[in-house]
Amino acid sequence: MTENKRKATPISDLGEFGLIERLTDKIKLKNQSTLKGVGDDAAVLGFNEKKIVITTDLLTEGIHFNLMYVPMKYLGYKAVVVNLSDIVAMNATPRQITVSLAISAKFSVEAIEEFYEGIYEACEYYGVDLIGGDTTSSLTGLTISITAIGEARQSYIVYRSGAKKNDLICVSGDLGGAYMGLQLLEREKEVVKVNRQAKLQLEGYDYILKRQLKPEARLDMLRVFRTLGIMPTSMIDISDGLSSELMHICKQSNAGAKIFEDKIPMDNETKAMANEFNINPIVAALNGGEDYELLFTIPLNEHKKIQNHPDITVIGHIVDASEGTMLVTTGGSEIELTAQGWNPLKR
Amino acid sequence: MTENKRKATPISDLGEFGLIERLTDKIKLKNQSTLKGVGDDAAVLGFNEKKIVITTDLLTEGIHFNLMYVPMKYLGYKAVVVNLSDIVAMNATPRQITVSLAISAKFSVEAIEEFYEGIYEACEYYGVDLIGGDTTSSLTGLTISITAIGEARQSYIVYRSGAKKNDLICVSGDLGGAYMGLQLLEREKEVVKVNRQAKLQLEGYDYILKRQLKPEARLDMLRVFRTLGIMPTSMIDISDGLSSELMHICKQSNAGAKIFEDKIPMDNETKAMANEFNINPIVAALNGGEDYELLFTIPLNEHKKIQNHPDITVIGHIVDASEGTMLVTTGGSEIELTAQGWNPLKR
Repeated sequence: MTENKRKATPISDLGEFGLIERLTDKIKLKNQSTLKGVGDDAAVLGFNEKKIVITTDLLTEGIHFNLMYVPMKYLGYKAVVVNLSDIVAMNATPRQITVSLAISAKFSVEAIEEFYEGIYEACEYYGVDLIGGDTTSSLTGLTISITAIGEARQSYIVYRSGAKKNDLICVSGDLGGAYMGLQLLEREKEVVKVNRQAKLQLEGYDYILKRQLKPEARLDMLRVFRTLGIMPTSMIDISDGLSSELMHICKQSNAGAKIFEDKIPMDNETKAMANEFNINPIVAALNGGEDYELLFTIPLNEHKKIQNHPDITVIGHIVDASEGTMLVTTGGSEIELTAQGWNPLKR
Repeated sequence: MTENKRKATPISDLGEFGLIERLTDKIKLKNQSTLKGVGDDAAVLGFNEKKIVITTDLLTEGIHFNLMYVPMKYLGYKAVVVNLSDIVAMNATPRQITVSLAISAKFSVEAIEEFYEGIYEACEYYGVDLIGGDTTSSLTGLTISITAIGEARQSYIVYRSGAKKNDLICVSGDLGGAYMGLQLLEREKEVVKVNRQAKLQLEGYDYILKRQLKPEARLDMLRVFRTLGIMPTSMIDISDGLSSELMHICKQSNAGAKIFEDKIPMDNETKAMANEFNINPIVAALNGGEDYELLFTIPLNEHKKIQNHPDITVIGHIVDASEGTMLVTTGGSEIELTAQGWNPLKR
């Protein structure tokens, strides 16, 4: 959909080195810790007494994204955000990324440039340096691999394993929107499949579409934590759905949890779309994924510090491991959570 | 070819988390700088006053490897080596890697475990920690993305850009073997295609097959440099062929080069196989790639230090940029080198 608007130069016209030069000549390094970026066998970083945090994600066409309704620029932006979100979930500041692409012959130079525009926009917004990568061909489809590097003082780093009994379980923002945005896009794709003249009907769904197509990493929450004077005891980003992420924290903290259905923050548009699809909105929040909000725990006695913050919601508390990981429904019954999450290996 | 020997459990039986647990439960961390490995949103590293070097590679089935003749274990080993070689080419010591895989439904759990056996063998051999990654599905084929992290004192780091006029151009080991090994494997694959009963005829070609299937990163050369008391002025690993790599050094050093055909080190098996294929062996060395030897420059006055080392060959010297990048043939004529290399985007 994006290739029609512009010139379409076959990638083979430039070759690997030509393509890399064209894609990287706009890079301006922003971080002191970036000693050498693109252009040698490896990039060089230096962080002095800070610790380094590193994460990586692999995204494949047809599994993680569908180019029928995701513009290349948005895809580039989101691919960066997904990785930065993991750095943020360590309570660390993202500094550098590497971007590797495997590209099939169906993509033009311009399509890849549009993808990189999204990459650069994310780098600009988050103050991150693009320092390297690999560009190669694939027999079919597009594969994206991104590695992100961040820094933090050792005492600031928050693991999944630090949740203690009675800690409050909190989430930033609201949940389920990205999943409902995906459902909407999938439905409209099917409509267009049946009738090629039909246009995607996406008006009036700005919020959930933005949640799906242009999510943000909650780097801003790290500043909120500092301002409020809180330090999470455990933290994870919500990429696979609340249920699966909470189970990760409980497993690694050797703890249980009790969360409350009526506390889980959801936007009205998310709820309305869920009703339209006859989905219980709580399912979108628990199992939907891709919201990239933060799930974290804080000591009970810090409740006052966060209770008036508009972007933090307490959804429950940590209990003994023997009590399991439970959802208390609006009706008052308790249901054991399962890590349904999003299993990309189950097809 | 590797899946027949063993049990074949569908990956969907384990799911992503189950597969990751099964693949990572053998990890024993070896490096002090690895503060936290697999199991959180990101790994945590700390290097004190040392600088960090980072590189990444993406390998796709059908482009970089052919599973018809590459056993999964060798593939895992080589995927690590390719990345460590880039760290070594910075004159840095590799310390950690991340491994991401996109796997199609045709692979069993056992096939992926075999791949990881190769990964672990390389980690063991090079003293490197596996600290994270991502495991997901793909619609077709196998894609491998590896990121390697190394450390070095800042003053030890060698870039491609430091070559000076009159510097000696050196290579480690010998060249062209990996390319001839690939030609042999490709030929035997075609034979088997025509006659499914035929067996791969690989006897007597141990050296070139090993060069192709189980290359090594020249980490040992860093110790040689220390022992001999030399410090390369520029360095690159030979992954795309001598010609392309030398042009990288010349371009980034704003220099030219003169290398001599009769000096380029080649093994007898490489030459014999080239003759069998009616290929000029020099072509295998210049444009073949995948040898993962080091190409480096040293000041002219350090010639004595290296001249008797069995694993270092002087193949030429650096000249003014205006003189170009030239090969002096055995017959005495000069040919301008072209970066034919290996262009994975040209099909």
